[in-house]
Amino acid sequence: MEVAGLSLDGCHRLDELRAWHDACRKAPVAFDMTRGLPSDEQIALSHAMLSLPGPAPFDSGDGQDWLNYGGQQGIPQLRALLAPLLLGVPATQAAVGGNSSLALMHAAVGLAWRIGLPGHAPWSDAHEVRFLCPVPGYDRHFAICSDHGIALVPVPMGHDGPDMERVEKHVAQDPRIRGMWCVPRHSNPCGATYSAEVLRRLATMHAAAPDFTLFCDNAYAIHDFAPQALARPGLYDACATAGNPDRVLLFGSTSKMTIPGAGVALLGGSARIMDWWLAAQRACTIGPDKVNQVRHLRFFGNAAGVARHMQQHGHLLQQRFAQVQRVFAQRLRTPCDVHWSRPAGGYFITLWLPTGCARRVVSLASQAGVRLTPAGTTHCGGTDPEDRCLRIAPSRLPVADAARAAEIIAGCVLLACADAASVACDTTATAPDAHP
Amino acid sequence: MEVAGLSLDGCHRLDELRAWHDACRKAPVAFDMTRGLPSDEQIALSHAMLSLPGPAPFDSGDGQDWLNYGGQQGIPQLRALLAPLLLGVPATQAAVGGNSSLALMHAAVGLAWRIGLPGHAPWSDAHEVRFLCPVPGYDRHFAICSDHGIALVPVPMGHDGPDMERVEKHVAQDPRIRGMWCVPRHSNPCGATYSAEVLRRLATMHAAAPDFTLFCDNAYAIHDFAPQALARPGLYDACATAGNPDRVLLFGSTSKMTIPGAGVALLGGSARIMDWWLAAQRACTIGPDKVNQVRHLRFFGNAAGVARHMQQHGHLLQQRFAQVQRVFAQRLRTPCDVHWSRPAGGYFITLWLPTGCARRVVSLASQAGVRLTPAGTTHCGGTDPEDRCLRIAPSRLPVADAARAAEIIAGCVLLACADAASVACDTTATAPDAHP
Repeated sequence: MEVAGLSLDGCHRLDELRAWHDACRKAPVAFDMTRGLPSDEQIALSHAMLSLPGPAPFDSGDGQDWLNYGGQQGIPQLRALLAPLLLGVPATQAAVGGNSSLALMHAAVGLAWRIGLPGHAPWSDAHEVRFLCPVPGYDRHFAICSDHGIALVPVPMGHDGPDMERVEKHVAQDPRIRGMWCVPRHSNPCGATYSAEVLRRLATMHAAAPDFTLFCDNAYAIHDFAPQALARPGLYDACATAGNPDRVLLFGSTSKMTIPGAGVALLGGSARIMDWWLAAQRACTIGPDKVNQVRHLRFFGNAAGVARHMQQHGHLLQQRFAQVQRVFAQRLRTPCDVHWSRPAGGYFITLWLPTGCARRVVSLASQAGVRLTPAGTTHCGGTDPEDRCLRIAPSRLPVADAARAAEIIAGCVLLACADAASVACDTTATAPDAHP
Repeated sequence: MEVAGLSLDGCHRLDELRAWHDACRKAPVAFDMTRGLPSDEQIALSHAMLSLPGPAPFDSGDGQDWLNYGGQQGIPQLRALLAPLLLGVPATQAAVGGNSSLALMHAAVGLAWRIGLPGHAPWSDAHEVRFLCPVPGYDRHFAICSDHGIALVPVPMGHDGPDMERVEKHVAQDPRIRGMWCVPRHSNPCGATYSAEVLRRLATMHAAAPDFTLFCDNAYAIHDFAPQALARPGLYDACATAGNPDRVLLFGSTSKMTIPGAGVALLGGSARIMDWWLAAQRACTIGPDKVNQVRHLRFFGNAAGVARHMQQHGHLLQQRFAQVQRVFAQRLRTPCDVHWSRPAGGYFITLWLPTGCARRVVSLASQAGVRLTPAGTTHCGGTDPEDRCLRIAPSRLPVADAARAAEIIAGCVLLACADAASVACDTTATAPDAHP
């Protein structure tokens, strides 16, 4: 898939890499890898939805008229289908509403801020509210906190979840810590899936704040590359078993299952949490779009239909991720201190570079026509103190383009590393950022 | 449409009315008139939407991919169609998002509370925030204020809008008054449409609070019973002409145009207001359901299509409202101090009763199987100090049922009035509420 003259083959020395990059700049590609967007091929899997639900009648079974106002919790059959798969709770402990789980997260944090979690004072009464944020993490989670003046406390992510030693210490000692972001499966952007032991520790740990709450974004709950049986997400069950059923608020959506932005979003938790949420919704909205819920129900049919559909998604994602893994493995063997995640699902690969190289690589890639998520967005406050971490989002590109984009990113990494090494050896060199 | 034995004909004396009511209680109907719901016949006008948008491609013209994430403002063509008709602003000064204008109102009040209107301090910084509420008014508007701890200041509604003498005095003198609810066309529940002079005075009046804002709920902007040319709502233009373009936030939705709850909602205002709104949305949501927007665009086609569609709605509503007007005119000539609105559009008739009778009528009607909006909900704090005002919502009932419901309501009014008169004349009588 190499463009003539733009191959990295044989480029090792700084001058060779610079020549390669100059050639790339003169014939830039136009690849947008800034966000984890499904590809057109993935979306085509759901084109049948564009003519659904169709004219056939539907009976919600609970007296709700699906074609008129009414009902805050959503169509029971859709809750029964999706709540166990996406949130790990029964249908009664979930609400389907809106098209955006991010909107539900923002609203839930806002509600805790305004009226407090069930039985607790509003966070707005507190002198300071803090959230633990596993880092690298998701910039929109950080933005929700920033919107409410909530201070972010970073904790490092490992291969099987956040560093639980630090999490437990923070949560046990600091009553200002009222919440924590979690993406327990194929986390954004590391791709880590929390181990059962991490879930257990999150559920059982002592919390100094009595209303400490896990904000669990199950965005990639069943978004595996390889076919596998759909497992019920375990965080709610772990909390309930630990006697802390109110400790977790769960979020999910079908945006990366059907049509992005035109999906349905879910919020779940204990019965007490649901009473709290639904009571507050009465003044907030006239109710959810139930037609879109019936559309989803008819499209999926049942859990087996969901599984089949997600396997097709996984296959398409796998093709793209495999190209990036192949190119990185081929091109990035040499530089020390370059490594990357090998996720089994989700939408991102995290690439760790030598200290001080991430922004430089984003800039070099941009010059070659590959737009990456800005360096630093994976970190609280938008700044990666070591400037090491990049989020790579191969999902939307056609397979060949994913390979080409990975080649360009790899070349930019090699160039940035060679540049950095050159600066380190040659005190008369110009600073890397000043290089053309 | 009289049920044998349940006719009001010839019932005049208290004992006759009591006997009639006893008969109604023994064979109760089951009519829900608590909310302004469209009828099944109205919803059937939009059944074609259940198979839209269909598989045909769509080009938003602005580079947005309608089948993927992206874009906070919504599909330009739908804004161009609906923003002038529903809000009275151009496409660039509106955002289409979500399914619920109530949700947008709640979010807009919440945003003013949290970060302040453009260029102004957050309302949460103020010792007290007050809103003017025309009364009778809409309970969900009151609830949004209540949710944010905003105090309600009632002002009386007249035939052509709120009492502007009082509005101007309050707004000029009290800097705590930061907002005012307005439903300028076919207001809920009075049915009044604000005159051009009222709009002009709202737009030009002096406000003690520099961020005083009209929260304009255009829920019934083009919801006339009789066919008529669609007029551009005038409040924004009046504000812009007065040099106060940032004074108004406009809200509308298609929930009473297409499928209730499955419509699209709109927020509009000045360019400055829109910048403020859209910037804040970035952390709040992943973006609107654009597929539903294209669905609406394909269903309506153009402004003439909207007008034709709304004429069909108007015809169906007119049939129901005409029955209530006919029955009230026939039955409620006698009691003094009973009168009601004769709206030309919208979803409600307001019925004014002798002081102290409204709750009694709701109770009597309920016993006969007609559920009415609870008395008091039309007033700030849920209490009508004179207990006089009822909101009648005939829209959802089949035409014959609307007539029957009106007959029962009229009978209950006559009974409550006769009971009240009897109590006034006979100090030995039991209190009306104690009557079986």
